[in-house]
Amino acid sequence: MYTIVVYDVEQRRVGKICRYLRRYLNWVQNSAFEGELTEHQIEEMTAGLRRIINRDQDSVYIYQIPERRWCTRRVVGVEKTNLDTVL
Amino acid sequence: MYTIVVYDVEQRRVGKICRYLRRYLNWVQNSAFEGELTEHQIEEMTAGLRRIINRDQDSVYIYQIPERRWCTRRVVGVEKTNLDTVL
Repeated sequence: MYTIVVYDVEQRRVGKICRYLRRYLNWVQNSAFEGELTEHQIEEMTAGLRRIINRDQDSVYIYQIPERRWCTRRVVGVEKTNLDTVL
Repeated sequence: MYTIVVYDVEQRRVGKICRYLRRYLNWVQNSAFEGELTEHQIEEMTAGLRRIINRDQDSVYIYQIPERRWCTRRVVGVEKTNLDTVL
């Protein structure tokens, strides 16, 4: 399952959430990650996020697309991570 | 074409880019928009973004999924905009 995660969280939790998401996905730009995950990994990641964030203040959106090829990505400006080279 | 836009731009350009993207898409959270666009609208929006941003400093990622139903969205924490009520 191709997964895109974008988050809008209190500044003091950004570092923790960023480190957590790096365990599952590729950093794309500030507050955005993407990558291929299994259903189990998504459930595990989501449960972990629920523990880390403040659910009354923070917002994490998890987009899932069954097939990577169904999602095209276009970059305007700086491509902060060239995902094609990310193993 | 279902479109998700996430951006990571210099603070002084955030307002301008946000106002611009509101003309095309629904604000989801800080630095994230989504919505249905035609191919022409995407081209038009992308060209406009190229004029607005600083291409050496700013980063805008545009994800396109041909069918809205191919993309599921899960929110952890605050859902800042309930897109189901956005007309």
